[in-house]
Amino acid sequence: MGSKYPPSVRFCLPPLTIVLEVLFIVLFVFYTSYDTSLGNQRKFLETYGVFQDVIIMAALGLGFLTSSLRRHCWSSVAFNLFMLAFGVQWAVLLNGFLEQPSSGGIVINLYSIQLATMSAMSVLISAGSILGRVNLVQLVVMALMEVTAFVILRTFGKKFLYMDDHISLTYSHVFAAYFGQMVDWRLSKPLLEEAKEKVQMATGPGLFAMLGTLCLWIFWPSFNSALLDVTDERKNALFNTHYALAVSAVTAISVSALSNPGGKINLIHIHNAVLAGGVAVGPSCHLIPSPWLAMVLGLIAGLISIGGAKCLQVCLHHQLGIHDSCGVRYTFGWPGLLGGVAYIVQMVLRVDWTWNPMMDQQVLIYMGMLAWVVAIGMLSGLLTGLILKLEIWKAPHEAKYFDDQAFWKFHHLATGF
Amino acid sequence: MGSKYPPSVRFCLPPLTIVLEVLFIVLFVFYTSYDTSLGNQRKFLETYGVFQDVIIMAALGLGFLTSSLRRHCWSSVAFNLFMLAFGVQWAVLLNGFLEQPSSGGIVINLYSIQLATMSAMSVLISAGSILGRVNLVQLVVMALMEVTAFVILRTFGKKFLYMDDHISLTYSHVFAAYFGQMVDWRLSKPLLEEAKEKVQMATGPGLFAMLGTLCLWIFWPSFNSALLDVTDERKNALFNTHYALAVSAVTAISVSALSNPGGKINLIHIHNAVLAGGVAVGPSCHLIPSPWLAMVLGLIAGLISIGGAKCLQVCLHHQLGIHDSCGVRYTFGWPGLLGGVAYIVQMVLRVDWTWNPMMDQQVLIYMGMLAWVVAIGMLSGLLTGLILKLEIWKAPHEAKYFDDQAFWKFHHLATGF
Amino acid sequence: MGSKYPPSVRFCLPPLTIVLEVLFIVLFVFYTSYDTSLGNQRKFLETYGVFQDVIIMAALGLGFLTSSLRRHCWSSVAFNLFMLAFGVQWAVLLNGFLEQPSSGGIVINLYSIQLATMSAMSVLISAGSILGRVNLVQLVVMALMEVTAFVILRTFGKKFLYMDDHISLTYSHVFAAYFGQMVDWRLSKPLLEEAKEKVQMATGPGLFAMLGTLCLWIFWPSFNSALLDVTDERKNALFNTHYALAVSAVTAISVSALSNPGGKINLIHIHNAVLAGGVAVGPSCHLIPSPWLAMVLGLIAGLISIGGAKCLQVCLHHQLGIHDSCGVRYTFGWPGLLGGVAYIVQMVLRVDWTWNPMMDQQVLIYMGMLAWVVAIGMLSGLLTGLILKLEIWKAPHEAKYFDDQAFWKFHHLATGF
Repeated sequence: MGSKYPPSVRFCLPPLTIVLEVLFIVLFVFYTSYDTSLGNQRKFLETYGVFQDVIIMAALGLGFLTSSLRRHCWSSVAFNLFMLAFGVQWAVLLNGFLEQPSSGGIVINLYSIQLATMSAMSVLISAGSILGRVNLVQLVVMALMEVTAFVILRTFGKKFLYMDDHISLTYSHVFAAYFGQMVDWRLSKPLLEEAKEKVQMATGPGLFAMLGTLCLWIFWPSFNSALLDVTDERKNALFNTHYALAVSAVTAISVSALSNPGGKINLIHIHNAVLAGGVAVGPSCHLIPSPWLAMVLGLIAGLISIGGAKCLQVCLHHQLGIHDSCGVRYTFGWPGLLGGVAYIVQMVLRVDWTWNPMMDQQVLIYMGMLAWVVAIGMLSGLLTGLILKLEIWKAPHEAKYFDDQAFWKFHHLATGF
Repeated sequence: MGSKYPPSVRFCLPPLTIVLEVLFIVLFVFYTSYDTSLGNQRKFLETYGVFQDVIIMAALGLGFLTSSLRRHCWSSVAFNLFMLAFGVQWAVLLNGFLEQPSSGGIVINLYSIQLATMSAMSVLISAGSILGRVNLVQLVVMALMEVTAFVILRTFGKKFLYMDDHISLTYSHVFAAYFGQMVDWRLSKPLLEEAKEKVQMATGPGLFAMLGTLCLWIFWPSFNSALLDVTDERKNALFNTHYALAVSAVTAISVSALSNPGGKINLIHIHNAVLAGGVAVGPSCHLIPSPWLAMVLGLIAGLISIGGAKCLQVCLHHQLGIHDSCGVRYTFGWPGLLGGVAYIVQMVLRVDWTWNPMMDQQVLIYMGMLAWVVAIGMLSGLLTGLILKLEIWKAPHEAKYFDDQAFWKFHHLATGF
Repeated sequence: MGSKYPPSVRFCLPPLTIVLEVLFIVLFVFYTSYDTSLGNQRKFLETYGVFQDVIIMAALGLGFLTSSLRRHCWSSVAFNLFMLAFGVQWAVLLNGFLEQPSSGGIVINLYSIQLATMSAMSVLISAGSILGRVNLVQLVVMALMEVTAFVILRTFGKKFLYMDDHISLTYSHVFAAYFGQMVDWRLSKPLLEEAKEKVQMATGPGLFAMLGTLCLWIFWPSFNSALLDVTDERKNALFNTHYALAVSAVTAISVSALSNPGGKINLIHIHNAVLAGGVAVGPSCHLIPSPWLAMVLGLIAGLISIGGAKCLQVCLHHQLGIHDSCGVRYTFGWPGLLGGVAYIVQMVLRVDWTWNPMMDQQVLIYMGMLAWVVAIGMLSGLLTGLILKLEIWKAPHEAKYFDDQAFWKFHHLATGF
């Protein structure tokens, strides 16, 4: 049995990451160049605004959303930044290699950076499932694996299932949720009593997590509309996401009070379920023609998110030993599936009016997209989980789960919040 | 006498809000549709940026501004989000019904959503007066009443007093402050000793409230310019608000130190008074032709805000029993009145140069606007206060005032900040 | 020896600041007017977005970055806001007087406000060196001195060394760092044991400082591109800063783990070193033609920032008694010098291709810019330090260093975080 002191990552993390970083730079030297074509300049600055919103969601929103673990908040925020900065570089390279295979060089423009950032966000989401039970080395390995899997998903999805970037990126939440679940399942161990105490939420971390939630809530419409080109579609995407989020916020808080015997609201539900509407409306946000449909989606998303958190959480935890540190399953998993189903229904209804023999096939393709996303998510997650279980990564000991002190230099006086 | 345990809102809040939410959706089904006219697309995306700023102010700014109550910060932030999400839906419907009464359907575009968000902000402001002493059911009822009153104010103000949207929305601060005062007055009870301890500010909540203040300070120019159409007026509005805020920040901090015998600054003053300049310059921000006028307004606003907080707070508290949990009166009330007077003076000076027989009437109209706003605010606030006093809302017991534990599921270990 | 109770600033701060504020207003009355020429309106609103990003960096980013001092966080954030609001007004006036000396009046437009805000940011950076050991009166005096010195630097740099605004503003980090160092050096006294305990970082302030870091990290590309006019240069500036920041974040976290015997990361390093890439790439960000160069700069910046923090911090502290409360030296000082050298190399390489006799002179000019910035920073910092040491400012006693209680009204119950 191992020591209770966390194994030092000193001779593991820095060499690995610095070697990878140098490797990235070398690849950038030989394969990338900036797009020097003078495109539409006005559009560039408009798009940059949306890109900024996405970065705020990734760095501030997802960073603080996972900071509710009382003793693990420094790690949550800082590791999130690390994975983002790391994942973006890898995703730009990989996207370039797979999408522009023949041209010999990767042209970097705002679109490719934005795509890379949104791909890297799936890593940040999955990490929410296992935060507190892994070290940064494992997260780096996971980032490499997951970005690779997601880029493969996108490339083949585009080629064989006609998934455009908007669809694959809004499906990335589902992908990330199931990826995270599988990693979590492979890594899960029964929690010790002392670790259980550390997951309890205190006032300060609860507020920081609320800050993350609010950043995501405010900028989610930008995420859903980021890859749409036609202004009319963007407008619909913005409005529908806005309404879905408003309704899911109201629903989540109400249902959370309903589900507690004393009528008390659970802040962990709120952190996650208010966002369910944005996830659920994602794939079809540009197609929904009137606000009430988006609102209904938001209502259902809020309901299944809280319902799932309440009922399935306990049962999955006991049966499969899945912990899901930050509730990724009910924030992104189920609402994402709902969104997939809503997209399929929308597309089928659209096709339906002019009956054609291809319809069956098209319906199959729409269903295939969702299945493909879930399948790749689970398979690559399983593989990643197996790799992360290896001894070489020096995972923290169970007694040091959810504990910043395993990773951070603390002054003896400063342990309280 | 009631139990000290807070009455559960389990069979009160969720049924009420979910029924209302479903009702909203049904109304949206029958009466609303998206604006499909392809307007100026560039303008759409510009305006969306300003709209985003307003949402940041409402969700982050006003949410965290009220989080300074040491034991009530979760409720402050989350209830703020709830009221915003709820109020926006009701305001869109009501604005539509009263402004487009004949057309049979409400066309939803960015302008109507923005107007609804800004109308809902008045609820968030008023809530600052009574937070900690009411439950979420009461806040929902207040949101319904206040949005209704404000939409009525706007509609009749537009018809009979020629108030355009910019004026009514910048006057909304005054409306909200007096609405909140009246509700507060009806609900006020002497505070128990244990509740008094809970209103003291600790370091963490103080910083979170500062975060809210800064978000409001940064984006206030966007709020003041949001409903102006002419670029030149917007430019003036942005600059004047910028200068007024800069001067009121300097003044507020200085005068707060001056007003304390030991020269110590009161953070509660700072949270509120640095914003006084933005409120005071609001109605006339597009008319002021040179920066120094805005700066003088900012200076006076800072002075009366701190002065009022210092002198009148104590006396009003003792005489009328008004508590004003988060200092709404001196953030929005007095500076708002100053802004109203400044607007009247500006308009009178403008008219004055070309003497005409209509002048008296016009001056009366300008003064009537302010009186109308204050009157409607006080009347509807009084009515709302009487309704909220009813037993059926299961208001928290005085011993549980300012206490998150009345509303939130807490883990036994996590009571400290 | 003085009393341990902090001398009250009651009869010192408010009179000084209010007199200055009134003086500013009077100067604005006589010398300023808004730019009423109808420029390119679209461009105005675009530029306003960038200006907003800069304000977010100044008020939120730099405000919270310095809030990591456990017992000094209220002062850090609020004094930062004060200096910003104050410095902006002074900088607008001074920039106007020195740049438009003959025209008799200062025309205020968005560019001049933006320039003033960016100039005032140098005060906020320098303040990070001495926060906790000075009172607000001293900071006001420093703001006056530093803005004056920086405007002189810019004016003469423009006249004699052809420094454009982009160069002088990206060099402002170096200027501010060396200015702060010198002030720090003049003010430094050995810390008492009780003060040492107060500088330790606790969980909550650590997270708030992380919030500041993230705000700066997200919006740094906007700062670096704010004063560039050509869209192509802005695009390069945005992309290069983005990549440099990504690499420096990865490098900083890795190297911080490497430099600790137990492999533990130091959060203070992270707060500062992740930003080093943005500082280093600043002056040449619009010239760098491909991403890998920016990435290399980010890598080196991260290395020297952590290396310096680790090695030189201790030695400078012991030898010169420089404390550098918030690590300004390794966030802005060294990476800024690196950025200056990178700019010189870039420019020399550019000139090199077409050999001409002027080259030597041009190289000298490029080197002269950096030397000029450092020299003015050190000289004016030294002078300011000497002035701030005067007894008349009633500096806090050493026993009250790093303590909010010296400046803020506290409730007896609310001393914990």
